Amino acid sequence: MGLVTCQISMSLDGYVAGPRQSLANPIGEGGLRLHEWMFATATWRQSQGLSPVPETSDDAIVKDLMSNAGVGAFVMGRNMFGPIRGEWDMSWKGWWGDNPSYHAPVFVLTHHPREPVPMQGGTTFYFVTDGIESALRQALEAAAGKNVQIGGGASTVQQTMRAGKLDELNLHITPIVLGAGERLLESVGEPNMSPVSVVASPKVTHIKYRIEH
Amino acid sequence: MGLVTCQISMSLDGYVAGPRQSLANPIGEGGLRLHEWMFATATWRQSQGLSPVPETSDDAIVKDLMSNAGVGAFVMGRNMFGPIRGEWDMSWKGWWGDNPSYHAPVFVLTHHPREPVPMQGGTTFYFVTDGIESALRQALEAAAGKNVQIGGGASTVQQTMRAGKLDELNLHITPIVLGAGERLLESVGEPNMSPVSVVASPKVTHIKYRIEH
Repeated sequence: MGLVTCQISMSLDGYVAGPRQSLANPIGEGGLRLHEWMFATATWRQSQGLSPVPETSDDAIVKDLMSNAGVGAFVMGRNMFGPIRGEWDMSWKGWWGDNPSYHAPVFVLTHHPREPVPMQGGTTFYFVTDGIESALRQALEAAAGKNVQIGGGASTVQQTMRAGKLDELNLHITPIVLGAGERLLESVGEPNMSPVSVVASPKVTHIKYRIEH
Repeated sequence: MGLVTCQISMSLDGYVAGPRQSLANPIGEGGLRLHEWMFATATWRQSQGLSPVPETSDDAIVKDLMSNAGVGAFVMGRNMFGPIRGEWDMSWKGWWGDNPSYHAPVFVLTHHPREPVPMQGGTTFYFVTDGIESALRQALEAAAGKNVQIGGGASTVQQTMRAGKLDELNLHITPIVLGAGERLLESVGEPNMSPVSVVASPKVTHIKYRIEH
Protein backbone atom coordinates (compact mmCIF):
# COMPACT_ATOMS: atom_id res chain seq x y z
CA MET A 1 0.00 0.00 0.00
CA GLY A 2 1.30 3.45 -0.89
CA LEU A 3 1.69 6.34 1.51
CA VAL A 4 -0.59 9.36 1.75
CA THR A 5 1.64 12.38 1.21
CA CYS A 6 1.41 16.13 0.82
CA GLN A 7 3.67 18.80 -0.70
CA ILE A 8 2.87 22.34 0.34
CA SER A 9 4.53 25.76 0.63
CA MET A 10 3.94 27.43 3.99
CA SER A 11 4.84 30.88 5.27
CA LEU A 12 6.83 31.16 8.48
CA ASP A 13 3.62 32.19 10.23
CA GLY A 14 1.84 29.06 9.04
CA TYR A 15 -0.22 30.17 6.06
CA VAL A 16 -0.62 28.22 2.83
CA ALA A 17 -2.88 30.77 1.12
CA GLY A 18 -3.41 34.50 1.46
CA PRO A 19 -6.69 36.17 2.44
CA ARG A 20 -9.63 36.84 0.07
CA GLN A 21 -9.25 33.97 -2.41
CA SER A 22 -10.97 34.70 -5.73
CA LEU A 23 -10.86 33.87 -9.43
CA ALA A 24 -8.23 36.61 -9.83
CA ASN A 25 -6.29 35.47 -6.73
CA PRO A 26 -6.85 31.70 -6.53
CA ILE A 27 -4.44 31.36 -3.61
CA GLY A 28 -5.46 34.64 -2.00
CA GLU A 29 -3.88 38.06 -1.93
CA GLY A 30 -0.11 37.69 -1.60
CA GLY A 31 -0.46 33.92 -1.87
CA LEU A 32 1.79 33.68 -4.93
CA ARG A 33 4.68 34.85 -2.73
CA LEU A 34 4.56 31.39 -1.14
CA HIS A 35 5.68 29.93 -4.47
CA GLU A 36 8.28 32.48 -5.56
CA TRP A 37 11.09 30.13 -4.55
CA MET A 38 9.77 27.66 -7.17
CA PHE A 39 9.31 30.25 -9.93
CA ALA A 40 12.98 31.22 -9.43
CA THR A 41 14.34 27.72 -10.11
CA ALA A 42 16.10 26.73 -13.34
CA THR A 43 13.73 23.77 -13.66
CA TRP A 44 10.56 25.85 -13.48
CA ARG A 45 11.94 28.58 -15.75
CA GLN A 46 12.94 26.01 -18.37
CA SER A 47 9.44 24.49 -18.27
CA GLN A 48 8.02 27.94 -19.04
CA GLY A 49 10.52 28.73 -21.80
CA LEU A 50 12.22 31.48 -19.75
CA SER A 51 15.91 32.35 -19.95
CA PRO A 52 18.16 29.90 -18.07
CA VAL A 53 19.53 30.43 -14.55
CA PRO A 54 21.92 28.16 -12.57
CA GLU A 55 20.44 25.21 -10.70
CA THR A 56 20.30 25.31 -6.88
CA SER A 57 19.36 22.81 -4.21
CA ASP A 58 15.72 23.74 -4.90
CA ASP A 59 15.82 22.20 -8.36
CA ALA A 60 15.84 18.59 -7.17
CA ILE A 61 12.71 19.37 -5.17
CA VAL A 62 10.97 21.01 -8.12
CA LYS A 63 11.89 18.13 -10.46
CA ASP A 64 10.34 15.76 -7.96
CA LEU A 65 7.23 17.92 -7.71
CA MET A 66 6.80 18.39 -11.45
CA SER A 67 7.31 14.73 -12.30
CA ASN A 68 4.95 13.59 -9.54
CA ALA A 69 7.55 10.93 -8.76
CA GLY A 70 6.01 7.91 -7.05
CA VAL A 71 2.48 9.35 -7.05
CA GLY A 72 -0.33 7.17 -8.42
CA ALA A 73 -3.38 9.27 -7.55
CA PHE A 74 -4.38 12.62 -6.05
CA VAL A 75 -7.03 13.87 -3.64
CA MET A 76 -8.03 17.53 -3.56
CA GLY A 77 -10.73 19.80 -2.23
CA ARG A 78 -13.31 21.33 -4.45
CA ASN A 79 -11.97 24.86 -3.95
CA MET A 80 -8.63 23.65 -5.27
CA PHE A 81 -10.36 22.26 -8.36
CA GLY A 82 -12.07 25.53 -9.17
CA PRO A 83 -13.77 28.72 -8.00
CA ILE A 84 -17.33 27.37 -8.47
CA ARG A 85 -19.52 27.00 -5.38
CA GLY A 86 -22.92 25.28 -5.23
CA GLU A 87 -24.16 23.39 -8.32
CA TRP A 88 -21.59 22.46 -10.97
CA ASP A 89 -20.98 24.46 -14.13
CA MET A 90 -20.23 21.45 -16.34
CA SER A 91 -17.94 23.48 -18.59
CA TRP A 92 -15.44 23.90 -15.71
CA LYS A 93 -12.73 21.25 -15.95
CA GLY A 94 -10.12 22.61 -13.54
CA TRP A 95 -7.47 25.32 -13.79
CA TRP A 96 -4.99 23.23 -15.72
CA GLY A 97 -6.10 23.15 -19.41
CA ASP A 98 -6.83 20.07 -21.56
CA ASN A 99 -3.74 18.13 -20.44
CA PRO A 100 -3.31 18.63 -16.66
CA SER A 101 0.08 17.75 -15.23
CA TYR A 102 -1.41 15.17 -12.85
CA HIS A 103 -1.41 12.35 -15.44
CA ALA A 104 -3.28 10.18 -12.92
CA PRO A 105 -6.72 9.86 -11.30
CA VAL A 106 -7.66 12.91 -9.19
CA PHE A 107 -10.38 12.52 -6.56
CA VAL A 108 -12.18 15.81 -5.84
CA LEU A 109 -14.10 16.19 -2.55
CA THR A 110 -17.50 17.82 -3.11
CA HIS A 111 -21.07 17.84 -1.85
CA HIS A 112 -22.36 17.92 -5.46
CA PRO A 113 -22.32 14.68 -7.49
CA ARG A 114 -20.82 14.80 -10.98
CA GLU A 115 -19.80 12.20 -13.55
CA PRO A 116 -16.03 11.62 -13.97
CA VAL A 117 -14.28 14.05 -16.33
CA PRO A 118 -11.54 12.36 -18.40
CA MET A 119 -8.81 14.69 -19.68
CA GLN A 120 -5.84 14.23 -21.98
CA GLY A 121 -2.62 12.67 -20.73
CA GLY A 122 -4.09 10.22 -18.23
CA THR A 123 -5.76 12.63 -15.80
CA THR A 124 -9.37 11.84 -14.87
CA PHE A 125 -11.26 13.91 -12.30
CA TYR A 126 -13.54 11.81 -10.08
CA PHE A 127 -16.01 13.50 -7.74
CA VAL A 128 -16.42 12.04 -4.26
CA THR A 129 -19.44 13.01 -2.17
CA ASP A 130 -19.02 10.69 0.81
CA GLY A 131 -16.03 12.24 2.55
CA ILE A 132 -12.28 12.15 2.94
CA GLU A 133 -11.97 8.52 4.09
CA SER A 134 -13.83 7.32 1.00
CA ALA A 135 -11.74 9.56 -1.26
CA LEU A 136 -8.50 8.24 0.27
CA ARG A 137 -9.67 4.64 -0.04
CA GLN A 138 -10.55 5.08 -3.70
CA ALA A 139 -7.32 6.94 -4.39
CA LEU A 140 -5.13 4.32 -2.67
CA GLU A 141 -6.85 1.61 -4.70
CA ALA A 142 -6.40 3.55 -7.95
CA ALA A 143 -2.74 4.24 -7.08
CA ALA A 144 -2.12 0.47 -7.00
CA GLY A 145 0.80 0.58 -4.55
CA LYS A 146 2.08 4.03 -5.45
CA ASN A 147 1.53 7.04 -3.19
CA VAL A 148 -1.56 9.22 -2.94
CA GLN A 149 -0.78 12.92 -2.87
CA ILE A 150 -3.09 15.44 -1.24
CA GLY A 151 -3.23 18.29 -3.73
CA GLY A 152 -4.69 20.80 -1.23
CA GLY A 153 -6.03 23.07 -0.03
CA ALA A 154 -5.63 23.48 3.69
CA SER A 155 -9.03 22.02 4.60
CA THR A 156 -8.36 18.78 2.70
CA VAL A 157 -4.95 18.39 4.37
CA GLN A 158 -6.57 19.05 7.75
CA GLN A 159 -9.32 16.47 7.13
CA THR A 160 -6.66 13.92 6.16
CA MET A 161 -4.60 14.64 9.29
CA ARG A 162 -7.67 14.54 11.56
CA ALA A 163 -8.58 11.16 10.09
CA GLY A 164 -5.03 9.99 11.03
CA LYS A 165 -4.30 9.17 7.39
CA LEU A 166 -1.49 11.54 6.43
CA ASP A 167 1.82 9.64 6.41
CA GLU A 168 4.21 12.26 5.07
CA LEU A 169 4.12 16.05 5.01
CA ASN A 170 6.65 17.89 2.84
CA LEU A 171 6.72 21.49 3.96
CA HIS A 172 8.48 24.13 1.90
CA ILE A 173 8.93 26.80 4.56
CA THR A 174 9.27 30.21 2.97
CA PRO A 175 10.81 33.07 4.98
CA ILE A 176 7.80 35.34 4.62
CA VAL A 177 5.19 36.53 7.10
CA LEU A 178 1.79 36.71 5.39
CA GLY A 179 -0.13 37.91 8.45
CA ALA A 180 -3.48 36.66 7.19
CA GLY A 181 -5.03 33.91 5.08
CA GLU A 182 -5.54 30.20 5.45
CA ARG A 183 -3.46 28.39 8.06
CA LEU A 184 -2.37 24.80 7.45
CA LEU A 185 -1.97 23.29 10.92
CA GLU A 186 -5.28 24.18 12.57
CA SER A 187 -7.66 21.60 14.02
CA VAL A 188 -5.37 18.73 13.12
CA GLY A 189 -5.14 17.13 16.57
CA GLU A 190 -1.69 16.14 17.85
CA PRO A 191 0.09 14.38 15.01
CA ASN A 192 3.23 12.45 15.98
CA MET A 193 5.68 13.99 13.51
CA SER A 194 9.42 13.63 12.94
CA PRO A 195 11.61 15.54 10.50
CA VAL A 196 13.31 12.88 8.35
CA SER A 197 15.09 15.04 5.80
CA VAL A 198 15.90 18.71 5.33
CA VAL A 199 17.09 20.52 2.22
CA ALA A 200 18.19 24.14 2.68
CA SER A 201 18.51 26.89 0.13
CA PRO A 202 18.79 30.68 0.36
CA LYS A 203 15.08 31.05 -0.47
CA VAL A 204 13.26 28.27 1.37
CA THR A 205 13.72 25.32 3.74
CA HIS A 206 12.29 21.97 2.67
CA ILE A 207 11.45 19.65 5.56
CA LYS A 208 9.98 16.19 5.09
CA TYR A 209 8.03 14.99 8.14
CA ARG A 210 6.93 11.40 8.71
CA ILE A 211 3.77 11.01 10.74
CA GLU A 212 3.36 7.89 12.89
CA HIS A 213 -0.17 6.70 13.70
CA MET B 1 27.74 47.83 16.74
CA GLY B 2 26.48 44.35 17.65
CA LEU B 3 23.43 42.68 16.15
CA VAL B 4 20.07 42.26 17.84
CA THR B 5 19.38 38.53 17.84
CA CYS B 6 16.86 36.06 19.19
CA GLN B 7 16.92 32.32 19.93
CA ILE B 8 13.52 30.69 20.31
CA SER B 9 11.85 27.29 20.02
CA MET B 10 8.66 27.35 17.95
CA SER B 11 6.07 24.68 17.26
CA LEU B 12 5.23 23.86 13.66
CA ASP B 13 1.99 25.80 14.09
CA GLY B 14 3.88 28.88 15.22
CA TYR B 15 3.59 28.86 19.02
CA VAL B 16 6.41 29.72 21.44
CA ALA B 17 4.36 29.15 24.61
CA GLY B 18 1.36 27.03 25.48
CA PRO B 19 -1.98 28.41 26.74
CA ARG B 20 -2.72 29.45 30.35
CA GLN B 21 0.72 30.55 31.54
CA SER B 22 1.05 30.49 35.33
CA LEU B 23 3.57 30.10 38.13
CA ALA B 24 3.20 26.33 37.78
CA ASN B 25 3.39 26.48 33.96
CA PRO B 26 5.63 29.48 33.18
CA ILE B 27 5.58 28.71 29.45
CA GLY B 28 1.99 27.57 29.41
CA GLU B 29 0.37 24.16 29.36
CA GLY B 30 2.34 21.87 27.07
CA GLY B 31 4.94 24.61 26.57
CA LEU B 32 7.81 22.48 27.91
CA ARG B 33 7.32 20.21 24.88
CA LEU B 34 8.86 23.02 22.82
CA HIS B 35 12.15 22.45 24.65
CA GLU B 36 12.24 18.65 24.81
CA TRP B 37 14.79 18.55 21.99
CA MET B 38 17.17 20.51 24.23
CA PHE B 39 16.57 18.43 27.35
CA ALA B 40 17.50 15.35 25.29
CA THR B 41 20.97 16.61 24.33
CA ALA B 42 24.19 15.31 25.86
CA THR B 43 25.22 18.90 26.64
CA TRP B 44 22.09 19.73 28.61
CA ARG B 45 22.06 16.38 30.42
CA GLN B 46 25.69 16.82 31.44
CA SER B 47 24.93 20.31 32.80
CA GLN B 48 22.22 18.76 34.98
CA GLY B 49 24.35 15.83 36.16
CA LEU B 50 22.24 13.28 34.27
CA SER B 51 23.61 10.07 32.74
CA PRO B 52 25.46 10.63 29.47
CA VAL B 53 24.01 10.14 26.00
CA PRO B 54 25.75 10.48 22.60
CA GLU B 55 26.07 13.98 21.10
CA THR B 56 23.98 14.88 18.05
CA SER B 57 23.87 17.86 15.73
CA ASP B 58 21.72 19.58 18.37
CA ASP B 59 24.64 19.76 20.83
CA ALA B 60 26.54 22.48 18.97
CA ILE B 61 23.38 24.59 19.09
CA VAL B 62 22.89 24.00 22.83
CA LYS B 63 26.56 24.77 23.60
CA ASP B 64 26.13 28.05 21.77
CA LEU B 65 22.93 28.79 23.67
CA MET B 66 24.32 27.90 27.09
CA SER B 67 27.54 29.85 26.66
CA ASN B 68 25.71 32.92 25.30
CA ALA B 69 28.48 33.11 22.72
CA GLY B 70 28.92 36.62 21.37
CA VAL B 71 26.14 38.09 23.52
CA GLY B 72 26.95 41.20 25.57
CA ALA B 73 23.50 42.10 26.91
CA PHE B 74 19.90 40.86 26.98
CA VAL B 75 16.45 42.42 26.65
CA MET B 76 13.38 40.63 27.96
CA GLY B 77 9.74 41.28 28.77
CA ARG B 78 8.52 41.55 32.29
CA ASN B 79 6.49 38.33 32.04
CA MET B 80 9.69 36.52 31.14
CA PHE B 81 11.37 37.94 34.24
CA GLY B 82 8.65 36.72 36.55
CA PRO B 83 4.98 36.00 37.23
CA ILE B 84 4.37 39.28 39.10
CA ARG B 85 1.93 41.79 37.57
CA GLY B 86 1.31 45.38 38.74
CA GLU B 87 3.57 46.79 41.50
CA TRP B 88 6.88 45.02 42.17
CA ASP B 89 7.42 42.51 44.93
CA MET B 90 11.03 43.52 45.67
CA SER B 91 11.92 40.02 46.85
CA TRP B 92 11.44 38.65 43.29
CA LYS B 93 14.76 38.50 41.48
CA GLY B 94 13.91 36.32 38.47
CA TRP B 95 13.50 32.58 37.98
CA TRP B 96 17.20 31.84 37.81
CA GLY B 97 18.58 31.78 41.37
CA ASP B 98 21.45 33.87 42.82
CA ASN B 99 23.77 33.32 39.85
CA PRO B 100 21.72 33.57 36.63
CA SER B 101 23.29 32.14 33.49
CA TYR B 102 23.13 35.49 31.68
CA HIS B 103 26.41 36.81 33.18
CA ALA B 104 25.67 40.16 31.51
CA PRO B 105 23.31 43.15 31.85
CA VAL B 106 19.65 42.23 31.33
CA PHE B 107 17.18 45.00 30.44
CA VAL B 108 13.63 44.18 31.55
CA LEU B 109 10.69 46.02 29.92
CA THR B 110 8.13 47.14 32.48
CA HIS B 111 5.67 49.93 33.28
CA HIS B 112 6.81 49.93 36.92
CA PRO B 113 10.13 51.64 37.82
CA ARG B 114 12.60 49.70 39.96
CA GLU B 115 16.23 50.15 40.96
CA PRO B 116 18.76 47.84 39.23
CA VAL B 117 19.18 44.41 40.86
CA PRO B 118 22.79 43.15 40.78
CA MET B 119 23.19 39.38 41.00
CA GLN B 120 26.20 37.08 41.27
CA GLY B 121 28.27 36.20 38.21
CA GLY B 122 27.95 39.47 36.32
CA THR B 123 24.20 39.57 35.75
CA THR B 124 22.45 42.84 36.63
CA PHE B 125 18.74 43.33 35.97
CA TYR B 126 17.89 46.86 34.79
CA PHE B 127 14.27 47.97 34.53
CA VAL B 128 13.28 50.05 31.53
CA THR B 129 10.00 51.99 31.57
CA ASP B 130 10.28 53.98 28.34
CA GLY B 131 9.83 51.24 25.76
CA ILE B 132 11.61 48.80 23.50
CA GLU B 133 13.68 51.31 21.51
CA SER B 134 15.16 52.69 24.72
CA ALA B 135 15.83 49.19 26.06
CA LEU B 136 17.60 48.19 22.85
CA ARG B 137 19.66 51.39 22.82
CA GLN B 138 20.78 50.85 26.41
CA ALA B 139 21.49 47.17 25.77
CA LEU B 140 23.54 47.84 22.61
CA GLU B 141 25.59 50.39 24.50
CA ALA B 142 26.14 48.01 27.41
CA ALA B 143 27.06 45.20 25.00
CA ALA B 144 29.93 47.35 23.70
CA GLY B 145 30.09 45.82 20.23
CA LYS B 146 28.81 42.38 21.14
CA ASN B 147 25.27 41.22 20.28
CA VAL B 148 22.08 41.94 22.18
CA GLN B 149 19.88 38.89 22.59
CA ILE B 150 16.12 39.18 23.03
CA GLY B 151 15.35 36.75 25.83
CA GLY B 152 11.59 36.63 25.12
CA GLY B 153 8.72 36.32 25.35
CA ALA B 154 6.72 36.61 22.17
CA SER B 155 5.56 40.17 22.81
CA THR B 156 9.10 41.48 23.26
CA VAL B 157 10.25 39.76 20.06
CA GLN B 158 7.24 41.24 18.25
CA GLN B 159 7.95 44.75 19.55
CA THR B 160 11.57 44.42 18.40
CA MET B 161 10.50 43.23 14.93
CA ARG B 162 7.86 45.95 14.58
CA ALA B 163 10.50 48.53 15.45
CA GLY B 164 12.62 47.12 12.61
CA LYS B 165 15.41 46.30 15.05
CA LEU B 166 15.70 42.50 14.97
CA ASP B 167 18.69 41.50 12.82
CA GLU B 168 18.77 37.74 13.33
CA LEU B 169 16.13 35.21 14.32
CA ASN B 170 17.25 31.70 15.28
CA LEU B 171 14.20 29.46 15.15
CA HIS B 172 14.32 25.96 16.59
CA ILE B 173 11.33 24.46 14.78
CA THR B 174 9.94 21.53 16.73
CA PRO B 175 7.71 18.99 14.96
CA ILE B 176 4.80 19.45 17.33
CA VAL B 177 1.39 21.02 16.90
CA LEU B 178 0.41 22.86 20.11
CA GLY B 179 -2.97 24.09 18.85
CA ALA B 180 -3.14 26.99 21.31
CA GLY B 181 -0.93 29.42 23.18
CA GLU B 182 1.19 32.40 22.25
CA ARG B 183 2.17 32.80 18.60
CA LEU B 184 5.52 34.35 17.72
CA LEU B 185 5.00 35.92 14.29
CA GLU B 186 1.84 37.98 14.83
CA SER B 187 1.68 41.73 14.23
CA VAL B 188 5.31 41.89 13.14
CA GLY B 189 4.78 43.63 9.80
CA GLU B 190 6.52 42.19 6.73
CA PRO B 191 10.12 41.49 7.76
CA ASN B 192 12.54 40.86 4.88
CA MET B 193 13.98 37.53 6.03
CA SER B 194 16.41 35.04 4.49
CA PRO B 195 17.46 31.65 5.85
CA VAL B 196 21.26 31.77 6.11
CA SER B 197 21.96 28.46 7.82
CA VAL B 198 20.08 25.30 8.67
CA VAL B 199 21.01 22.49 11.05
CA ALA B 200 18.83 19.40 10.95
CA SER B 201 18.38 16.70 13.56
CA PRO B 202 15.77 13.98 14.12
CA LYS B 203 14.05 16.10 16.78
CA VAL B 204 14.12 19.69 15.55
CA THR B 205 15.20 21.93 12.66
CA HIS B 206 17.35 24.95 13.48
CA ILE B 207 17.05 27.81 10.98
CA LYS B 208 18.96 31.06 11.30
CA TYR B 209 17.24 33.95 9.51
CA ARG B 210 18.87 37.28 8.73
CA ILE B 211 16.51 40.23 8.59
CA GLU B 212 17.36 43.14 6.28
CA HIS B 213 15.99 46.58 7.11
